[in-house]
Amino acid sequence: MKVIIVGGSATGMGVAAKLKRNDPNAEVIVYQDKDYVSLGACGLPYFVSNNFDNKEMLIARTKEQFEQSGIVVKTNSRVSSIDFDSKTVYFNDKQDTYEKLVIAIGAKPIIPNTSWKNLKNSFTITTLEDGIKLKEEMNKNPNIKKVAVIGAGFIGLEMTEALTEINKEVYLIEKEDRVSKKAFDKEFSELITTKLEEHNIIVKTSTELKEIVEVDGLAKQLIFSNSEKLEVDAIIFSIGFKPNTEIFTNTKLELFENGAIIVDNQGKTNIEDVYSAGDCATSKEFLTQKNIYSPLATVANKFAKVIADNLCGKNKVFVGSLRSAIFRCFDIGFARSGFTEEEAQDLFKIKIVFIKDKDHTHYLKGQKDIYLKLILDTETNTIIGSQLCAQNSAMLRANTLATIIWSKINVDEALEQIDLVYAPPYSKTTDILHIALSKFLK
Amino acid sequence: MKVIIVGGSATGMGVAAKLKRNDPNAEVIVYQDKDYVSLGACGLPYFVSNNFDNKEMLIARTKEQFEQSGIVVKTNSRVSSIDFDSKTVYFNDKQDTYEKLVIAIGAKPIIPNTSWKNLKNSFTITTLEDGIKLKEEMNKNPNIKKVAVIGAGFIGLEMTEALTEINKEVYLIEKEDRVSKKAFDKEFSELITTKLEEHNIIVKTSTELKEIVEVDGLAKQLIFSNSEKLEVDAIIFSIGFKPNTEIFTNTKLELFENGAIIVDNQGKTNIEDVYSAGDCATSKEFLTQKNIYSPLATVANKFAKVIADNLCGKNKVFVGSLRSAIFRCFDIGFARSGFTEEEAQDLFKIKIVFIKDKDHTHYLKGQKDIYLKLILDTETNTIIGSQLCAQNSAMLRANTLATIIWSKINVDEALEQIDLVYAPPYSKTTDILHIALSKFLK
Repeated sequence: MKVIIVGGSATGMGVAAKLKRNDPNAEVIVYQDKDYVSLGACGLPYFVSNNFDNKEMLIARTKEQFEQSGIVVKTNSRVSSIDFDSKTVYFNDKQDTYEKLVIAIGAKPIIPNTSWKNLKNSFTITTLEDGIKLKEEMNKNPNIKKVAVIGAGFIGLEMTEALTEINKEVYLIEKEDRVSKKAFDKEFSELITTKLEEHNIIVKTSTELKEIVEVDGLAKQLIFSNSEKLEVDAIIFSIGFKPNTEIFTNTKLELFENGAIIVDNQGKTNIEDVYSAGDCATSKEFLTQKNIYSPLATVANKFAKVIADNLCGKNKVFVGSLRSAIFRCFDIGFARSGFTEEEAQDLFKIKIVFIKDKDHTHYLKGQKDIYLKLILDTETNTIIGSQLCAQNSAMLRANTLATIIWSKINVDEALEQIDLVYAPPYSKTTDILHIALSKFLK
Repeated sequence: MKVIIVGGSATGMGVAAKLKRNDPNAEVIVYQDKDYVSLGACGLPYFVSNNFDNKEMLIARTKEQFEQSGIVVKTNSRVSSIDFDSKTVYFNDKQDTYEKLVIAIGAKPIIPNTSWKNLKNSFTITTLEDGIKLKEEMNKNPNIKKVAVIGAGFIGLEMTEALTEINKEVYLIEKEDRVSKKAFDKEFSELITTKLEEHNIIVKTSTELKEIVEVDGLAKQLIFSNSEKLEVDAIIFSIGFKPNTEIFTNTKLELFENGAIIVDNQGKTNIEDVYSAGDCATSKEFLTQKNIYSPLATVANKFAKVIADNLCGKNKVFVGSLRSAIFRCFDIGFARSGFTEEEAQDLFKIKIVFIKDKDHTHYLKGQKDIYLKLILDTETNTIIGSQLCAQNSAMLRANTLATIIWSKINVDEALEQIDLVYAPPYSKTTDILHIALSKFLK
């Protein structure tokens, strides 16, 4: 079996590694447009903020390590087109043919105006080169004091923290009326904003970037939809991602509304022997099994294993994602799984509990607020969404919530009595989860 | 309805509070042998080690607060006997009659030899008086340098930490061949011992206290089963608890092997209109529904609400306990839920996974080891036991494990893909739980 994998990040290299373990005789060739593979892109904000300085730490496994296990890795090989009929991949004016193909070409950051890409002080934070350039400029260029982060999703939010840690004056610009609107409901957007403002980050919502005043190739002034203006020394775009699927426009490969490659729960596209996953493809929402675009490392990681198994005839499925996610915001964290209230209200008959409590016993120091929102589907009587805010050491409750959603356990008096661990440094005898569940049963 | 509650700790006051909320007209009378109610005994080790100094913080709710809600609280009222036929409670040479009775008289620490109780430097850690006396002596008596903790269960282990924090030379003496044998398997006993020894605590297992050499009413030397001797300045007994049920010996109230009052899952004893729960009673193990003795605050807390509801004719059940528990051991924690391997091997057909991994990404500081053991019942294909060791900030994974056991979710490829939250400061894309589950599926 000859398998060509286009793309050498989490999905591509994940498929390659598992496939070779499954079937040491498989011929596995990876075409990767960069000169490295297996970037742990989630670490980039922490690299920029000097949590660590060795860029090698961002590489989960090197090209050489993959090659040692018999995988052929062709770096600096940009695939320009694919002919699905003749099963041919074209790259760097050369070509290769596959029996099975895995497209794992990821996504690129959205920049609303292409001319803004070329500004010398405009940055994105997706590739290793992005990270190196941004770290260098932010730490060594004395002219960069005021930085605008455009887009208040997870990466934008992580970048505000990173930039604050290296003493920048940070402006967070969000087109929507509140931060992280796709991931969280209003209550949590407000908690995020409050925390950012505590750290002197200026948060501007309902503010769309319309124009950039450029001087000598540098962005100097931002002009917003509301006519406000802002002088800046640098801009970081974190608006979201667009799948790298331009080369498939007008091919027979079926694409989702945002250009993502549509795959079934086995990672199969509409074209025989062609698989895809990761940031360039759709995945399934766990509860509804609907196609969604959720470019998360956790999805890429799991889906890669599923595809590797399916390439070996194992008939595995990716059962879906809750879009579970978490981010640190200084001393506190925010996490979510499943549907937000805003999403759920159109799809389900719901009941909501949103409460505030304390994370552990009052007599031990460091007791802090904890906020929990649960969304109950009253027809199935199961939890379909959760949002959590707490100090960092209390945040792993988020996985308890994800597990409650995942197990589809009935919300009844038995669940209300769930036997969670208790000791004074970690919790209260009655946890916030118990309190929240009891409110549904009243 | 006239309800008498004997005992004013978590269970008794929990029943009283909920009952009065359920039915404001109920006549609720609590007889409590102490002059305070509602002690949060779990805080005592932290009180002793000066995490806080105000003893009022250990009182969850005062007598006066309960009285304000219409509950009659008779402190310093030791019930000496109960005549179930005439429904009469005898206390302090007085008597009172009930329509419904709740026995919540707790348990006392086991001291193998009654004469050892009277030693001036021998302590237990159950009541507020215990805590005050121990704090005073440990912090102010210059002669107490070397302290032996007898019994390496949760309280003994918490006390070794507390005493180390206030600079005592600590000896932990355990009769069994390893620490915390009832709660954890061998691997975790070893991890606990290693951590204790790192903090210069001397751990002596397979070592039973046989004799105490007394001088002027003070324990001076301990003599063990293996003939070893140890000079000490103080002893703390933390061997375990015995239900305070002597007054029911030779009555028709049915008692468990250790003297605990046997109750059904509604909190009913074998005698009509008589309920019991908490440290003086049995409870049900969740998975097998067998009677167990598990004197934990979490059980008391939940069972109290169940009894209060049942007193009002609500027909509620306490569904059972996993004996979920956690304790802090300096910078790390240990948690458990369900059956240990040692227990499970006689009851189920089991498979075991025990693995070590890291708690979060390698490029962020503070990455530490995490140990996880899961016990699978191969017949039901569900997890029936979990044990976890990790640094404190990673310990709330224990509740994810408890939830997996509680939900009785099938261990299959869908569970292997459980959508846990991931961000570099909190976790890895593939969590130790994913790795452990995948090992069952191989």
